[in-house]
Amino acid sequence: MTRQASRVLLNTGDGKGKSSAAFGVMIRAWARGWTVGVVQFIKSEKWVVGERKLAHQLNIRWHTLGNGFTWESADIDHSAEMARHAFVVATEMLSSGDYDMVILDEFTYPLNYGWIELDAALQAIKGRSSKTNVVITGRNAPSELLELADTATEMRKLKHAYDRGIRARKGIEY
Amino acid sequence: MTRQASRVLLNTGDGKGKSSAAFGVMIRAWARGWTVGVVQFIKSEKWVVGERKLAHQLNIRWHTLGNGFTWESADIDHSAEMARHAFVVATEMLSSGDYDMVILDEFTYPLNYGWIELDAALQAIKGRSSKTNVVITGRNAPSELLELADTATEMRKLKHAYDRGIRARKGIEY
Repeated sequence: MTRQASRVLLNTGDGKGKSSAAFGVMIRAWARGWTVGVVQFIKSEKWVVGERKLAHQLNIRWHTLGNGFTWESADIDHSAEMARHAFVVATEMLSSGDYDMVILDEFTYPLNYGWIELDAALQAIKGRSSKTNVVITGRNAPSELLELADTATEMRKLKHAYDRGIRARKGIEY
Repeated sequence: MTRQASRVLLNTGDGKGKSSAAFGVMIRAWARGWTVGVVQFIKSEKWVVGERKLAHQLNIRWHTLGNGFTWESADIDHSAEMARHAFVVATEMLSSGDYDMVILDEFTYPLNYGWIELDAALQAIKGRSSKTNVVITGRNAPSELLELADTATEMRKLKHAYDRGIRARKGIEY
């Protein structure tokens, strides 16, 4: 088995900046002429209005395939089905050899909900094209995913405006 | 004293993603039509080649005024002087009312080196225009800065490719 030239980066923890940092890495990759793909496992308004708009301009292939967090979902079976579909798309992207970087945004949630099998996820990442770097975000990353990652960062909340009763502010929080 | 409508965000810790997350927030702000300014207190190649290229395209006002980390500096007095100049520029941006967001990238270093007085830094932030949100990045944020922040995140290193002897990879690490 040859050593992967590519990397797996993981941003986890309960703090801010997991997806924002992934987005920063995405832009860095784009600026170098890399082909980048994004699969969003949880539909997130903040990416739609901000980063997604830019990603579209930059020709980054973007798939929002998730259906929200469980506690937002009106139909859990449907949400699980969407997550599994997103995983099929992601697996294809990872193995295709077409991408220098694939971002699996909020990927830990469907794993932790049991919507996607952890073993299948690990295999998809291990079985990726050797050129394809992977960036994974989400809280409570399973230990096996941490083990697989080359670089992992915990975004830890030290202090949050919410805690002080300040409402989310457009342009910063979402 | 009226409550600031704007926020102070702080990304600190020894892990990855402090500046990348600030960059993500910058893009989100830009996508909403905000006027954004960036002052880099430490010259960093990674921003030059990646984010900075994009920022230029987006008309974000960008000042790289730092001169590297102390351990990279051939002339500490000159580096300190550059950091103080950067701080003058930043203070002007903060108070001008021209910016919806000002990013002080790697701002904690000149504070910790004693190049910029902490009290002066705190006053510049407190004395900013009420519309101007501030994002500060850097390791080892002084506790007074944490106190001033509305939202603070510690990027904590769980695992790093460097630790395993893998060299920095263009497009991801810098």
